[in-house]
Amino acid sequence: MAPAPVLGILGGGQLGRMLALAAAKLGIKTRVLSDDRDAPAADVAEFQYAHYDDEAALSAFANAVDVVTYEFENVPARTAQVLAAVKPVRPSAQVLAVTQDRWTEKSFLRAQGIATAPFANIERDVDLAMAVGQIGTPAIVKTRRMGYDGKGQRLVHSRAELSGAWADLNKAHAILEGVVHFSREISVVAARGLNGTVAAYDPVENRHESHILKTTIAPALISPEGRAQALEIANRILTALDYVGVMGVEMFETPAGILVNELAPRVHNSGHWTMDACTCSQFEQHVRAVMGWPLGPVDRFADAEMTNLLGAEALGWETRAPLPGQSLHLYGKADARPGRKMGHVTQLHPKT
Amino acid sequence: MAPAPVLGILGGGQLGRMLALAAAKLGIKTRVLSDDRDAPAADVAEFQYAHYDDEAALSAFANAVDVVTYEFENVPARTAQVLAAVKPVRPSAQVLAVTQDRWTEKSFLRAQGIATAPFANIERDVDLAMAVGQIGTPAIVKTRRMGYDGKGQRLVHSRAELSGAWADLNKAHAILEGVVHFSREISVVAARGLNGTVAAYDPVENRHESHILKTTIAPALISPEGRAQALEIANRILTALDYVGVMGVEMFETPAGILVNELAPRVHNSGHWTMDACTCSQFEQHVRAVMGWPLGPVDRFADAEMTNLLGAEALGWETRAPLPGQSLHLYGKADARPGRKMGHVTQLHPKT
Repeated sequence: MAPAPVLGILGGGQLGRMLALAAAKLGIKTRVLSDDRDAPAADVAEFQYAHYDDEAALSAFANAVDVVTYEFENVPARTAQVLAAVKPVRPSAQVLAVTQDRWTEKSFLRAQGIATAPFANIERDVDLAMAVGQIGTPAIVKTRRMGYDGKGQRLVHSRAELSGAWADLNKAHAILEGVVHFSREISVVAARGLNGTVAAYDPVENRHESHILKTTIAPALISPEGRAQALEIANRILTALDYVGVMGVEMFETPAGILVNELAPRVHNSGHWTMDACTCSQFEQHVRAVMGWPLGPVDRFADAEMTNLLGAEALGWETRAPLPGQSLHLYGKADARPGRKMGHVTQLHPKT
Repeated sequence: MAPAPVLGILGGGQLGRMLALAAAKLGIKTRVLSDDRDAPAADVAEFQYAHYDDEAALSAFANAVDVVTYEFENVPARTAQVLAAVKPVRPSAQVLAVTQDRWTEKSFLRAQGIATAPFANIERDVDLAMAVGQIGTPAIVKTRRMGYDGKGQRLVHSRAELSGAWADLNKAHAILEGVVHFSREISVVAARGLNGTVAAYDPVENRHESHILKTTIAPALISPEGRAQALEIANRILTALDYVGVMGVEMFETPAGILVNELAPRVHNSGHWTMDACTCSQFEQHVRAVMGWPLGPVDRFADAEMTNLLGAEALGWETRAPLPGQSLHLYGKADARPGRKMGHVTQLHPKT
């Protein structure tokens, strides 16, 4: 009999950990490469400590696995290139190139005819006036690369403020984005298989606190038209990118329809509820997709509310009896720093 | 902050593997000790290879964990003793002593006023005639120790056959058991916490092929009285044993009421459906109990049918799209020997 397949996972945080657990459910071994010696995923996988620019380590890693995937979108281009020379990297290096940069990502969406907030590029001082002229104020200046959880962003109310804010961001290549008046933040967690099949979980509503996801409500209470539009947009994005794996598509519901905010080319915090409310979780779905297996069903058997446990909120759960329909997930992180994602709790409700 | 707790698991088969996965969901690290270098649980836990009589290895193991549990009931008494000298062993060594021997187990049940098949002890040749006189024929001679999946058993139709059958079992200490005419084989998977709380999943029906569990149907289609009696019996057993952890209580439904067949002081194959149909699986429940955490809810949100994948039945699933409500579990075993438990599939159905 053929030896068990091995999935390589770049990054060892909670997403990598939950991917490894989902792979184990399917009898698939995992090998995690991370530059963090205390990576939470190390507890449940073969673990390789290395920096992401250590090309010898990357090659050894790729040689030890059948397929490479990742849990974070900021995989350096060169890292992806080195890995892809040895084994399939899914989602592809091309996907990373598009989604790592807000300008290329939004330009891609625009080219697909998908609505976004208005945006303008800022690379040089002379771009500032043009950007403000085009977008107006208030607006948000965002670095094109490496922003997450609100990092690398400044709200500005005038041309003068923009200049200072951009300087504050070290004049990194940036975009100026119009402020969107949305009724809800929603997301679609969608998967595309190696054969091109797309399967998306129902759109969910996300509520943030201090730019960090706090609560996901599944399903989002949106109109049937909004739901259909959100799912159609996700389908179009994954297909256009020839995507393989799970993607989190963050959107705004507005009176004028659905706008896309951001793409996360990986499993997504707003899909954690699927672990408890669906037969096939987003993690199993991602593993199925990148391993070239058929996708699983995306039906849910319950509605759900997922709450992130940030910092000290994760403490003391060993003394609390879970309520009916309540499922606790802790990530095994030793240090409960303020704002750190330590775990989550999902509360199931009868399906509406 | 306190370091993550560590659960020690004796035995590294699929039950140990699924226990380790459930512990990881709760942020608990696991260390598995097994005498099988290819133990399936080694993929998802810290792994220690050792023989169960290697006392130095056992002590090192116990010192590296907070609590010790096990995935198989035939833990040698001396092994349990060595471990218990260092850390809590749950369920206890006393529980192992009662349940490792069919005579002591059935005598315990009889002392609790719990009905079983009629049984008689066979230690010496002179016991044979008395046993047949008491039990009659047909009857089943079963070795008192180390029997599972039909091993160590012979059906006999006369005193003469018994003599040969017992010789065939190397005259190991045995019991002679009356043949029970049952309408269904059922089981109750029940848990008892450190504080004495008992929580039991609904009784399920089990169907065997060649003495190996093939299918579990949850819930069992029994009368409300039968259900209540089965749950009451399980509660009585766990409480009388001062049990901590999950136990599988195998029973027969007969016209005269529920009889207890066998106790499995561990997570049980007939509880695998809880992974997909309950918020808290039997594995999480066992981890919660032995770690001293409050028990989780035992409600199910769906009915379920669990089918074991034996030997080659586990092959080829990477090419099959799961149906709605169908969940695949593979154990990562390399060698698909005939009859070997390689995985299972659970099909959910709307709750009745």
